[in-house]
Amino acid sequence: MIWNTNLRWRLPVTCLLLQVALVVLFGVFVRYDLDADPHWIGSQGDENTTSDMENEFYYRYPSFQDVHVMIFVGFGFLMTFLQRYGYSSVGFNFLLAAFGIQWALLMQGWFHSYKEGYIRLGVENLINADFCVGSVCVAFGAVLGKVSPVQLLIMTLFQVTLFSVNEFILLSLLEVKDAGGSMTIHTFGAYFGLTVTWILYRPSLHQSKERQSSVYHSDLFAMIGTLFLWMYWPSFNSAVSKHGDAQHRAAINTYCSLAACVLTSVALSSALHKKGKLDMVHIQNATLAGGVAVGTAAEMMLMPYGSLIVGFICGIVSTLGFVYLTPFLESRLRIQDTCGIHNLHGLPGIIGAIVGAVTASCADAKVYGIKGLANFFGFDGFKTSWDSSMQGKFQAAGLFVSLAIALVGGIIVGVILKLPFWGQPADENCFEDSVYWEMPEELKSTVLHPEDSTLKPAEP
Amino acid sequence: MIWNTNLRWRLPVTCLLLQVALVVLFGVFVRYDLDADPHWIGSQGDENTTSDMENEFYYRYPSFQDVHVMIFVGFGFLMTFLQRYGYSSVGFNFLLAAFGIQWALLMQGWFHSYKEGYIRLGVENLINADFCVGSVCVAFGAVLGKVSPVQLLIMTLFQVTLFSVNEFILLSLLEVKDAGGSMTIHTFGAYFGLTVTWILYRPSLHQSKERQSSVYHSDLFAMIGTLFLWMYWPSFNSAVSKHGDAQHRAAINTYCSLAACVLTSVALSSALHKKGKLDMVHIQNATLAGGVAVGTAAEMMLMPYGSLIVGFICGIVSTLGFVYLTPFLESRLRIQDTCGIHNLHGLPGIIGAIVGAVTASCADAKVYGIKGLANFFGFDGFKTSWDSSMQGKFQAAGLFVSLAIALVGGIIVGVILKLPFWGQPADENCFEDSVYWEMPEELKSTVLHPEDSTLKPAEP
Amino acid sequence: MIWNTNLRWRLPVTCLLLQVALVVLFGVFVRYDLDADPHWIGSQGDENTTSDMENEFYYRYPSFQDVHVMIFVGFGFLMTFLQRYGYSSVGFNFLLAAFGIQWALLMQGWFHSYKEGYIRLGVENLINADFCVGSVCVAFGAVLGKVSPVQLLIMTLFQVTLFSVNEFILLSLLEVKDAGGSMTIHTFGAYFGLTVTWILYRPSLHQSKERQSSVYHSDLFAMIGTLFLWMYWPSFNSAVSKHGDAQHRAAINTYCSLAACVLTSVALSSALHKKGKLDMVHIQNATLAGGVAVGTAAEMMLMPYGSLIVGFICGIVSTLGFVYLTPFLESRLRIQDTCGIHNLHGLPGIIGAIVGAVTASCADAKVYGIKGLANFFGFDGFKTSWDSSMQGKFQAAGLFVSLAIALVGGIIVGVILKLPFWGQPADENCFEDSVYWEMPEELKSTVLHPEDSTLKPAEP
Repeated sequence: MIWNTNLRWRLPVTCLLLQVALVVLFGVFVRYDLDADPHWIGSQGDENTTSDMENEFYYRYPSFQDVHVMIFVGFGFLMTFLQRYGYSSVGFNFLLAAFGIQWALLMQGWFHSYKEGYIRLGVENLINADFCVGSVCVAFGAVLGKVSPVQLLIMTLFQVTLFSVNEFILLSLLEVKDAGGSMTIHTFGAYFGLTVTWILYRPSLHQSKERQSSVYHSDLFAMIGTLFLWMYWPSFNSAVSKHGDAQHRAAINTYCSLAACVLTSVALSSALHKKGKLDMVHIQNATLAGGVAVGTAAEMMLMPYGSLIVGFICGIVSTLGFVYLTPFLESRLRIQDTCGIHNLHGLPGIIGAIVGAVTASCADAKVYGIKGLANFFGFDGFKTSWDSSMQGKFQAAGLFVSLAIALVGGIIVGVILKLPFWGQPADENCFEDSVYWEMPEELKSTVLHPEDSTLKPAEP
Repeated sequence: MIWNTNLRWRLPVTCLLLQVALVVLFGVFVRYDLDADPHWIGSQGDENTTSDMENEFYYRYPSFQDVHVMIFVGFGFLMTFLQRYGYSSVGFNFLLAAFGIQWALLMQGWFHSYKEGYIRLGVENLINADFCVGSVCVAFGAVLGKVSPVQLLIMTLFQVTLFSVNEFILLSLLEVKDAGGSMTIHTFGAYFGLTVTWILYRPSLHQSKERQSSVYHSDLFAMIGTLFLWMYWPSFNSAVSKHGDAQHRAAINTYCSLAACVLTSVALSSALHKKGKLDMVHIQNATLAGGVAVGTAAEMMLMPYGSLIVGFICGIVSTLGFVYLTPFLESRLRIQDTCGIHNLHGLPGIIGAIVGAVTASCADAKVYGIKGLANFFGFDGFKTSWDSSMQGKFQAAGLFVSLAIALVGGIIVGVILKLPFWGQPADENCFEDSVYWEMPEELKSTVLHPEDSTLKPAEP
Repeated sequence: MIWNTNLRWRLPVTCLLLQVALVVLFGVFVRYDLDADPHWIGSQGDENTTSDMENEFYYRYPSFQDVHVMIFVGFGFLMTFLQRYGYSSVGFNFLLAAFGIQWALLMQGWFHSYKEGYIRLGVENLINADFCVGSVCVAFGAVLGKVSPVQLLIMTLFQVTLFSVNEFILLSLLEVKDAGGSMTIHTFGAYFGLTVTWILYRPSLHQSKERQSSVYHSDLFAMIGTLFLWMYWPSFNSAVSKHGDAQHRAAINTYCSLAACVLTSVALSSALHKKGKLDMVHIQNATLAGGVAVGTAAEMMLMPYGSLIVGFICGIVSTLGFVYLTPFLESRLRIQDTCGIHNLHGLPGIIGAIVGAVTASCADAKVYGIKGLANFFGFDGFKTSWDSSMQGKFQAAGLFVSLAIALVGGIIVGVILKLPFWGQPADENCFEDSVYWEMPEELKSTVLHPEDSTLKPAEP
């Protein structure tokens, strides 16, 4: 089927409408949190011993910047592995994330930071907005190369909304702990994206097969993404943890899990190749699974060896997934998962949720201290009657809620994106930058098939 | 015209002379600030409640590192978009910045950190030196591909000097607020650079036209620069703001402005192409204009929606500039602006100065609190009789001073750089690495014209 | 000689065995430090004025992340300059570092953090593990392109062990100051690596000569590594310094030294080329020598001008080394040093050790203050009778111990790695990714010689 991929009016209008709406909503709803407001200096003076250092900014800002790099460089470059889709990988990720963080500030703000008629913005909101967009970047990995930027903006609009609802249910209603987002970000993002790509199934995608692989330099660009994700993941999992030991512990656990994951990914990658050669796809992706899978439990008393075990398992599971499960999903279940997000975010996300539930169940005052246990899980307020096993059950419930919302939401959004007027590329023009980008001279006339509408004269 | 581009003696002698001079001047003038001196431990012991955390290092160091990345990787890689000028873009930027920061430590030190016969170095000086060099990197964008490294070192020497004078007039004499440097860094840097390139006008530059564009991978390298600039810009605009809420607010405002700027840049880029395709040049550059334009006002009560509006406007203005203004400047005004810095730093810098003046004018005790207002604008000392509207007027004055010094300074420096013995390339060898770099074998003999002196035997 | 390079069983078994052993050892030995344990909240409550900010995490975490980037992106990409070894440079560095940090946590933990039967992990341990692995990355530079990943894992196992022993002797027995690791990391790593490559001498390596150089884009990838190393080096040298002024001073000194080093590297690179052209190898490597050489003295009162002088000298020495010493080492001493680590880490490391010893010798109470001097050098406990000149002598002793352990250790490890069953490549297949990596289609059949075992049918 041939669609019109000329976005001259559709993309500008979508962008401008969304941005105008955001400006208006920000004008009505968004103000600064006390820590970012000049009145802070007065409020602070009341307490004698307080220093400027107590501003939330200094607790969270370095982690925020690391997370920011993961979203824009990490996810953006990770997807540049395709030989002819580098502009779109980096560029569309940039676009959807820039839109998504603004919309997430509003959605998450209404649910979590709404005080006296206004959303109050502070550095923690910025981190959470980046987190929310992280789940969109995950889903983008499944549909990479097969959708137009207009579709991506629409998907982001809906996914951020659903993410915020799901997050509210988990964190506020079920009182689930999920600081690194194994459930809210990775599981939700992955199964949402897989459902969308399942709805958008393209039976003739094999026509673009020759572009659905890497070239030498594109793999090196992708390693930039991989490494920044890998290195900054300890910041990701600890960014919104409680001050002090919880944040400290989350970073240590993530560091350990990721290190172990690299060794088992390499081991399996070599073992599964008939000549023992390593596959860049596994090194680029499976090595990160350990970070996903300690997302929930990183701030808990998982113990360093527990983190190594989680990373150990995830490197194996994820690499096996790339070798056996992805082809199976594509051929049997009609799920075309471009980046293999099921192996990097789906399965490890579920493992992470389970690890989190089990770790929470096992929490006791011997390990955490009485004060530490109450403080960490917040067993007060309406949770006074809770114990660890109760917490564990709610953790597990959180996983199922995330999966349910991802699947139902994914179907609805997939159906909307299937409408034929969003400028999506034809099957034979997938994974191809020149559909949406002005290309350098050398490459201009080489790839597109003549029937591509982008080569016809532009509509008036 | 054919110049001798063999730098064998000119470049080494320039580098070594400058570096020896710097060593001597550092020896005579530069010592550590108290916070970086072993006596700090004694001074600190006087106050009972003070912790090591109160050392300025912990307030500013993470932001410093982000700014450092922007100067060296951000600006360096942003300019690698040219197909045959990657070595020079990254390498010369590295060279001029490494020289510039040392000279800036001295110049800014004399003006701002001179106590009892010595310049006192602390982390804030390092940030300010990076800022100062940022303005040189901006100007480098205008002359990129057309100057020799010797010319760049000379330009840096003068520009850092002029920058420091201008900064002193603005910050110390006019008491202007400009923490993110819309005026001091971007407006000054851009119009200085544009004036220099105007003086250095090359009528036959079209002979190098085929190299003045990108190739596929060079655009991806440039995106590394773009993204690191974009992601770390909140640190840039907040790095030297007052501790606490001002630093916090500056980061939030910049985050918002940049996000909005991406959407309008994409919208305009697509709308201005006849087939609705995106242009990498706009994505690489116009998306950053929002960061430039909140440089002055980011730490003020611009409000999040105000930041979005600034970003919204700058994405549009900057993209329009690339499409319509840059060709006009080149053909009519003889300003050959290689990277389009007028669109990324010039216009947005002016917008930023205006936004800052207006925001300062509107400041009142209702929004800032009485204590906050006095604290933020420093309405004490000789400013006791000031009010916000007075501050606004001085802000506006700062813009004109910056423009004036940039234009006059640019003319003088341009004339100096026009002298024929600095090793500049011939018109047909512009935008070409092999003039100044030993190249890998594959590329050695392909590009240069035979009359190029670099292909003749070396002078004795 | 033809070796079997099929790693199908050797690499997976090595990785899995090592990782299982690490899990078991972590289970038996590793727990959280108090600052990362939920009991922290109780311990902290005892002191009234203490805030969450006093958690060690906030003092060290931003520096940790910078160091982490240096190890994985910095070293990884620095070595991608080879035209056909990018996958291996980044990928094997990733593998060895991920293994090395886990083993370093144990080795260094036993020596330095062993309390009541357990190693106590905190953020400082993570930094030190990264440091330890940094010395392995240095050594990897010498053998780059000539060893298999199995050999690298074995080298890492031994080198981390030896590093920890050497570090214990220097820091705990000799009470040497070496916060930035001029001796423990760079000198040790370089001479260990050079000894290993000397033992592994390949007389027919010239058969791979055409791949032992760069191509245009591979040099740009390498510059990513260079710049991240250069920019974050101030964090490297200050990461484990004492809180407050020492950490602050270490960052300033490193910043100064690196800046000066760039100018003299450029000067020498141009002066040593007959047409005055710059060589990318020098820009990529010699510019970093200044960071190595202030590793020991950065936290001392080296003074800013002292740092400039160190950088000045190292840029010259390192560039001269690349031009004259590396070819000499290869042809006369049979030391094939792929990345020239002798020039970047060896010589500057020795210079750094000497600078440190001299600076320590000159320390007096006039410069440091009485309190500062005692506090900084820890002249108490069994050091009560020490003075600065004593400290200087022990510093010098540390250099000789490091060299001795590096040479003896390097010989032993080199002999182990020479055994013929580790899957090392044949001389004509060195510097070639396709020996160990599944390659993209375009490149698959172009390079390897027919006698290469990887092209034969796989063993059963």
